[in-house]
Amino acid sequence: MGIDRKPRLPEIQGRRMKKPGEIFRVEQLDLEFANGQQRRYERLISKGVGAVIIVAMPDPDTVFLIREYACGVHRYEIGLPKGRLEPGESILEGANRELQEEVGFAAANLQEIGVLSLAPGYMSHVTHIVLARDLRESSLPGDEPEEIEVIPWAMDNLVELVRRPDCTEGRSIAALYIARDMIRNHAFN
Amino acid sequence: MGIDRKPRLPEIQGRRMKKPGEIFRVEQLDLEFANGQQRRYERLISKGVGAVIIVAMPDPDTVFLIREYACGVHRYEIGLPKGRLEPGESILEGANRELQEEVGFAAANLQEIGVLSLAPGYMSHVTHIVLARDLRESSLPGDEPEEIEVIPWAMDNLVELVRRPDCTEGRSIAALYIARDMIRNHAFN
Repeated sequence: MGIDRKPRLPEIQGRRMKKPGEIFRVEQLDLEFANGQQRRYERLISKGVGAVIIVAMPDPDTVFLIREYACGVHRYEIGLPKGRLEPGESILEGANRELQEEVGFAAANLQEIGVLSLAPGYMSHVTHIVLARDLRESSLPGDEPEEIEVIPWAMDNLVELVRRPDCTEGRSIAALYIARDMIRNHAFN
Repeated sequence: MGIDRKPRLPEIQGRRMKKPGEIFRVEQLDLEFANGQQRRYERLISKGVGAVIIVAMPDPDTVFLIREYACGVHRYEIGLPKGRLEPGESILEGANRELQEEVGFAAANLQEIGVLSLAPGYMSHVTHIVLARDLRESSLPGDEPEEIEVIPWAMDNLVELVRRPDCTEGRSIAALYIARDMIRNHAFN
């Protein structure tokens, strides 16, 4: 028992793709659990090879946030830069590309510090957290419809940030706290 | 400029529903941004009235985690109890129901401490964070295919928790850190 117990995974007894939208694919799974219970689940399958979210720090106390239009909630949201990896690109290469497209900086020091799921109950999506340091100005053209606003923020003031009604994304908040804890605990380098 | 600037929202010039899956609805939006750029976006529309994620604390140092099969990533995941609100149910009522279904406790003290989005760029989904205290044993039958394992965890040991490969959900991690910061700062009551 306890947190390190390994439960037996349900057996996948059937699997089929449902009619796709243009960017979302739905897969149906027939499952049998260890206790014999059978269920049919649907899950969203991510196209592509995962995503990155970047904690870019121009100095040891500051992180670069961005403000960007968020279509799902139809408002401007403040959060960390992120994006999908391109085929053939490593996690750190993708992070450095997104950083140049969205923030206008490149990093000489990139380190993966964790992995986040989005809604693991019904989405396969995976996002790698990358800590980016030793920054220098360097831009790449992105596909955004308008210029992204970059907002430097104090890493020791996350409490004020997460109280804002326009900073709500679970992955951004989780990545910021994970990076802050690591930096405080000197758990990397 | 600065974080409190209010950018002008893009104008919604067209909107239509795409062929739905059984549980996912896709909406297409035609947008015009303040600079005149036009784009077509797709977003996932949540059915229902939102969700709750519950930070249930049996004592001031401990939180109840659950281990549950997560179909999207096909593994058992450790995280906070959560679920969709039912029609007509308040946020706090829904939190107390989910707590009884998934953890086997009811709370006399329930408080909403924040709101999380999932993927605000392309999902409308909203999750209310509820801090639950003054717990007593009380169960309600849920619709889970197997019994959910409840794991008490020390709130001051989130670093070890988020390093685990089976604790990855952005919303759970964000809610745990937000609650921990609030408790440390006595920013509620």
